[in-house]
Amino acid sequence: MDIQRFNGKYHRASEVAQGVLLLEFNRPPVNAFNDDMWKELRSIVDDISNTPEIRVVVLSSALDKVFTAGLDLKAQIELNSPSLDPARKAIQLRDHVLDFQDAITSLERCRQPIICAMFGTSVGLAIDLACACDIRLASRDTTFGIFEVNVGLAADIGTLQRLPKIVGNESKVKELALTGRKFGAAEAKEIGFVSEMVGNGRKDVIAAAVDMAKMIASKSPIAVIGTKHLINHARDHTIEEGLRYTAIWNASMLQSVDTTEAMTAVMSKRVPQFPSFGGPASSSNSKSKAKL
Amino acid sequence: MDIQRFNGKYHRASEVAQGVLLLEFNRPPVNAFNDDMWKELRSIVDDISNTPEIRVVVLSSALDKVFTAGLDLKAQIELNSPSLDPARKAIQLRDHVLDFQDAITSLERCRQPIICAMFGTSVGLAIDLACACDIRLASRDTTFGIFEVNVGLAADIGTLQRLPKIVGNESKVKELALTGRKFGAAEAKEIGFVSEMVGNGRKDVIAAAVDMAKMIASKSPIAVIGTKHLINHARDHTIEEGLRYTAIWNASMLQSVDTTEAMTAVMSKRVPQFPSFGGPASSSNSKSKAKL
Amino acid sequence: MDIQRFNGKYHRASEVAQGVLLLEFNRPPVNAFNDDMWKELRSIVDDISNTPEIRVVVLSSALDKVFTAGLDLKAQIELNSPSLDPARKAIQLRDHVLDFQDAITSLERCRQPIICAMFGTSVGLAIDLACACDIRLASRDTTFGIFEVNVGLAADIGTLQRLPKIVGNESKVKELALTGRKFGAAEAKEIGFVSEMVGNGRKDVIAAAVDMAKMIASKSPIAVIGTKHLINHARDHTIEEGLRYTAIWNASMLQSVDTTEAMTAVMSKRVPQFPSFGGPASSSNSKSKAKL
Amino acid sequence: MDIQRFNGKYHRASEVAQGVLLLEFNRPPVNAFNDDMWKELRSIVDDISNTPEIRVVVLSSALDKVFTAGLDLKAQIELNSPSLDPARKAIQLRDHVLDFQDAITSLERCRQPIICAMFGTSVGLAIDLACACDIRLASRDTTFGIFEVNVGLAADIGTLQRLPKIVGNESKVKELALTGRKFGAAEAKEIGFVSEMVGNGRKDVIAAAVDMAKMIASKSPIAVIGTKHLINHARDHTIEEGLRYTAIWNASMLQSVDTTEAMTAVMSKRVPQFPSFGGPASSSNSKSKAKL
Amino acid sequence: MDIQRFNGKYHRASEVAQGVLLLEFNRPPVNAFNDDMWKELRSIVDDISNTPEIRVVVLSSALDKVFTAGLDLKAQIELNSPSLDPARKAIQLRDHVLDFQDAITSLERCRQPIICAMFGTSVGLAIDLACACDIRLASRDTTFGIFEVNVGLAADIGTLQRLPKIVGNESKVKELALTGRKFGAAEAKEIGFVSEMVGNGRKDVIAAAVDMAKMIASKSPIAVIGTKHLINHARDHTIEEGLRYTAIWNASMLQSVDTTEAMTAVMSKRVPQFPSFGGPASSSNSKSKAKL
Amino acid sequence: MDIQRFNGKYHRASEVAQGVLLLEFNRPPVNAFNDDMWKELRSIVDDISNTPEIRVVVLSSALDKVFTAGLDLKAQIELNSPSLDPARKAIQLRDHVLDFQDAITSLERCRQPIICAMFGTSVGLAIDLACACDIRLASRDTTFGIFEVNVGLAADIGTLQRLPKIVGNESKVKELALTGRKFGAAEAKEIGFVSEMVGNGRKDVIAAAVDMAKMIASKSPIAVIGTKHLINHARDHTIEEGLRYTAIWNASMLQSVDTTEAMTAVMSKRVPQFPSFGGPASSSNSKSKAKL
Repeated sequence: MDIQRFNGKYHRASEVAQGVLLLEFNRPPVNAFNDDMWKELRSIVDDISNTPEIRVVVLSSALDKVFTAGLDLKAQIELNSPSLDPARKAIQLRDHVLDFQDAITSLERCRQPIICAMFGTSVGLAIDLACACDIRLASRDTTFGIFEVNVGLAADIGTLQRLPKIVGNESKVKELALTGRKFGAAEAKEIGFVSEMVGNGRKDVIAAAVDMAKMIASKSPIAVIGTKHLINHARDHTIEEGLRYTAIWNASMLQSVDTTEAMTAVMSKRVPQFPSFGGPASSSNSKSKAKL
Repeated sequence: MDIQRFNGKYHRASEVAQGVLLLEFNRPPVNAFNDDMWKELRSIVDDISNTPEIRVVVLSSALDKVFTAGLDLKAQIELNSPSLDPARKAIQLRDHVLDFQDAITSLERCRQPIICAMFGTSVGLAIDLACACDIRLASRDTTFGIFEVNVGLAADIGTLQRLPKIVGNESKVKELALTGRKFGAAEAKEIGFVSEMVGNGRKDVIAAAVDMAKMIASKSPIAVIGTKHLINHARDHTIEEGLRYTAIWNASMLQSVDTTEAMTAVMSKRVPQFPSFGGPASSSNSKSKAKL
Repeated sequence: MDIQRFNGKYHRASEVAQGVLLLEFNRPPVNAFNDDMWKELRSIVDDISNTPEIRVVVLSSALDKVFTAGLDLKAQIELNSPSLDPARKAIQLRDHVLDFQDAITSLERCRQPIICAMFGTSVGLAIDLACACDIRLASRDTTFGIFEVNVGLAADIGTLQRLPKIVGNESKVKELALTGRKFGAAEAKEIGFVSEMVGNGRKDVIAAAVDMAKMIASKSPIAVIGTKHLINHARDHTIEEGLRYTAIWNASMLQSVDTTEAMTAVMSKRVPQFPSFGGPASSSNSKSKAKL
Repeated sequence: MDIQRFNGKYHRASEVAQGVLLLEFNRPPVNAFNDDMWKELRSIVDDISNTPEIRVVVLSSALDKVFTAGLDLKAQIELNSPSLDPARKAIQLRDHVLDFQDAITSLERCRQPIICAMFGTSVGLAIDLACACDIRLASRDTTFGIFEVNVGLAADIGTLQRLPKIVGNESKVKELALTGRKFGAAEAKEIGFVSEMVGNGRKDVIAAAVDMAKMIASKSPIAVIGTKHLINHARDHTIEEGLRYTAIWNASMLQSVDTTEAMTAVMSKRVPQFPSFGGPASSSNSKSKAKL
Repeated sequence: MDIQRFNGKYHRASEVAQGVLLLEFNRPPVNAFNDDMWKELRSIVDDISNTPEIRVVVLSSALDKVFTAGLDLKAQIELNSPSLDPARKAIQLRDHVLDFQDAITSLERCRQPIICAMFGTSVGLAIDLACACDIRLASRDTTFGIFEVNVGLAADIGTLQRLPKIVGNESKVKELALTGRKFGAAEAKEIGFVSEMVGNGRKDVIAAAVDMAKMIASKSPIAVIGTKHLINHARDHTIEEGLRYTAIWNASMLQSVDTTEAMTAVMSKRVPQFPSFGGPASSSNSKSKAKL
Repeated sequence: MDIQRFNGKYHRASEVAQGVLLLEFNRPPVNAFNDDMWKELRSIVDDISNTPEIRVVVLSSALDKVFTAGLDLKAQIELNSPSLDPARKAIQLRDHVLDFQDAITSLERCRQPIICAMFGTSVGLAIDLACACDIRLASRDTTFGIFEVNVGLAADIGTLQRLPKIVGNESKVKELALTGRKFGAAEAKEIGFVSEMVGNGRKDVIAAAVDMAKMIASKSPIAVIGTKHLINHARDHTIEEGLRYTAIWNASMLQSVDTTEAMTAVMSKRVPQFPSFGGPASSSNSKSKAKL
């Protein structure tokens, strides 16, 4: 695996353990996202999704005190400049929003699980990004905020859609989205936005995320990919639909060599070994674009 | 804004801060709801929704110890009187339930956010009402209860539909709905039904709600209306559907003057000023009926 | 009511209070589920659903330290044996998964509420089973685990579909499903998987469940059946759909004698009495198969 | 039944047979719809829906050569006048469209079936109106046209939503909507937009519609109301959902006296007699608003 | 294959060509359906679904002039007898309708395609049955009718759900369902209810159906089963959902040996040979219950 | 507009009228699609969607007797070669199918309407392609066929999903998909697959399509884009959902200058003139990727 190709102008990649990729935002001073940055993120994540050697991703920031402060406002203001015809302007704006949403959704459609390790300033777009990841951890020093309402707009890149479905307190979600106030890691844990509050600062939370990632990386990649995919599918379907889809999904996935390997390993108390999801027979074709 | 028109036989209205309306149930001794009362509530709330000067609503009770004790049972018993033909009776009953549901849903379809400030006795219909609001606060002295099962019926005005979707413990929701037992503010907070347990008694919880309302009232009304609308939309749609709808919604809303006003205010550290959502150009037509 | 017919090769039934059936898994040493066992479970539960005398069910285990250790792996390995044609094998596997799912779903479609009383080892299939019940209680000594990923497969009998919808922390759900790690009753309560952590060990949690069951058994069976049915319906529908369905459901159910009985009892402070849901007029036909 | 109350400034009502109401547009010279006219239509139709004596409606026009030429363009142009803020203007426009849609949808939510009898000029809004009716007949001389594209807009009052679902040629629907060309009764029949092409001119098509209406008016109103309601429900749901909803709908409706009356009449070859859907026991309360 | 087991008290089975089963209703004088008859039908069809040797089914009648006259009214009247409590009666009735619907739906969930060959009297339940089949042929002498409205009820076994989705003229569907009038084969073909009008009488239409069945029976059973399954799935899902489901379905089905066999046969112009869907490796387990 | 960039290795483009692009398949001898060809098609169509100067597309073939004979079978066989692990193979196959589907869906998501002009051999993939277009015309000499079943697979690129929703005879659709037999233009028109049967051979049908395209190209592009988009949206949503989405869509689109231009032109009987949808203010940014 060539780790270099996951580096970018605004992102830094490193293989921190067997099969575990640490991907960090890296645009000082505050990881403000302009269009180029989220386009780069999508490009890297879509590439990861097609790299069988990577089994889990930890998403964090290379800056010491900032996960991300969100949108680069200057770029946004430009986008909002008046147009001669509100209808034609609307077509432009809709395209832009859809494109931006798609970039953030790349985290969700990535085959491999993504653990989001947050700390310090984590506001605005930080919430949209985190909601599109699979597991969220936060250091004690994290400052969260759904800041979009403070800049005169309803969040449109995913927070309003995903956040209420992944936490257990819609009243609090609405309060946070409507007041635009800051909140801390403890409150985030209380409502179920993050699973755990771990340590204090960037290093601690990344270390905890990497530990968790290693555990996941030791499992069958077929089982791991399927578990992420099926939970995401379930969220948007009825129980009945989810069960039926699972049945046809597993109709092929249960034919994997991994199930037998895992079960016999469990029964004989040895550590199981699994080939990557691209497998020996398929490695040459595995570069097509990932799909939700 | 003529505050008088939001007063009614069973409701009391007051403007407690710029753009913040306090609406209180007012039918001593226990705010028991008969048909006239919920019809009046719908009429007032639909009117509020078309009053751009109102930016946030606090919903509470004018009685000292009771938010509401729920349905007026005597009216209900009358409704249940036998009929010659169960099919024709069913048509009547269905109409009545749909009409009642629609009245409670007026809180949800109201453009402006509604903060529900509960205390004392808050049982039966109190839960249906609160679930249709956006943010729920409760004083320490609140007694909650899903009492419908105690009077021989499955709750049909919204509790069974909304409650499981806005809290994080379906097991507890079913227990409360099936046993009809009382529960307190702490348990309500634990499952995520209320965001916060604040103070002790009516005055405290209303004061806390008004503070929160003021903060929301200072934001762009276009952003606030959109945020409420899009979160409600998201609840009933898949992530993909929600994102697409958001894109076309914001295709017009991002053309608002508010976004630029807010962003420039943020960058120059001044307090932004926003026109009401009815705006100068539209005030004459803004009286049409609000829609979900 | 003939209690004997709810006993089976792998299940033990007893009437522990008026209208309350205790059903216990009983396949020492660890209640490992083979195909015969889950087929027997479905058969018993479908029968319960058509027995009006039973008003609530408590589901637990007859073994002292084990709720269930999940699937009988040996049977599963056999199922995974290679086939000449992966397509024909897929048809077989899909049928098997759908059949197994249907057996677990019998708990959900059972008319009467089911309280799941867990303790000791409660892993793998234990989670699928519990998610299909209505109320979940756990003793302090319970060890939970979504173990499917450890045996090389994505859980396909319901956990991935139901668990995220009934708790308030999707981040934690994904972590547990992807790492396959153990977790305890406190963590289960924190995320909302169980309503309460009660006592220590099998006897305590069954006693608590039975107490809760008695309370539910004292309510109108029409109200209880409707409440379970409508909450389950709501989970898989929009609010609007849920409300409309409720209106036509209650159009007949409000014609029950129970509503009047309950309301007059409440007003005259006496204990209400309700006929079973099969009622006098219908007892002879009440043996048809229950439906979701 | 007081037939007068169904007359209006722009509509004319007459009882042309037992239980059959003929409602005609009546705004010479071309039945151009301004806001007042569609608001009046909604008001009349919602009233009809709650009048048990009316069993079927025939909707047509009182003008000799024109069903309707569609929107009153002058009113529409005024609505499109520029506004200071495109976002606030968008809120206004959305409200107006939703309100207009709701008025046309009153035909669909009306309990009783509505037969649309078209002739002569039937363009623009005529198609939206006809699509919201249940049965469509056209005289040989009818000129149809989806004219919205000719005035620079995508049809937004129902044609684009309903037409593709009620005919059997989406290719033709798109052609007609995108070219805005005229088409005749034969082409309308060929694609399934109208059931039959009958006679030549207003009198013929109204006579045919009234004959059909009489036949429907002789059936059980419980069966007729249910049939319309369930077909409309089915259109927007899966087969499974439709079947389940039908089961609970008929759980009360099969308790009607009409079923037995009809069956015994069939077996004894006599003409059955049915009370109106409001029935003796319910007539006093039957005035609540109709619901979809 | 033991053809005898598909015979029943009310049904007659014969193997009319390799892999083609002719199943005929056989309850003189008019194939009136009582509960036993539709329960037998379900049992036979569910068995067929698990018999790999059968590749296509032709469903018709053994009587010379009657496909079926529909429900046995006497049984139905009994079901409608009054009950003490309309709510408990409603539970009974709902169960009965759901059970009856499920029996008719067995035709739809049957893996193999079913061609419905109609002639003579084909009214009432005949329409429900035909709608649940895959392909419909009718002889010139067929008399159709949606007769439910004539006996005082809204059709509840599938006609109102399925018919509008499988034909191209909703106006006509509503007319036929609301008037309960008879219609002939030509009108049935015109609206798309039957694909073809063939010959005159029972023998002709059965012969045509068998010819079509033979053609289908010569194709890959994996391709045939998948085609039926995916078209049925598509009907109840969006295009996007349908495409995604198809992708995972074919992810295993494209691994069939049949595709290569068929493609090489096409290219070398020979007749392909396919094993039955149960295949050599799976025959012993193929008896589990079919699923939609 | 640089017409050259829409040419490709397998496609030929020409501007046949103001705003009308003719795009033709061009891979002699039979336009057999390999992966490169459908990837090129997607690339061209996505580019067209972002070219405001193009208002309508006619899709046809440059070969004289063949629209397309469908898939290049040799490439397909290679894809089906056995793999060591059916699960890993399934991941590959699913990716490939999803990618292929997405390429065909580019026709549907293209902003501008696409008229499909078919003639001669139009089998297999030809049907998938045509179903994803907006309007279908066929010359008298066309031979259609859903040939997938003949090569041992269930069609998975769109035919089974789209065809039943755009025609009016599901019985015929299933017959054609299950028998794989040929059918002609007359039968295609009868079931509503093509709007019209025009002339005889390639030149005639292209001429008719171009005439229709010119008519559409003369309309407001805002109205045309919206009409295509909203009809496609409606197909996959309930009437209510479709109406609500339309209201927010038109909330910005009605602010177009086109509506006033068109209405005043109609009233003054002159030919209206509309700017392209990219408009003066937006031309520089209009190159982002089109979205459904």
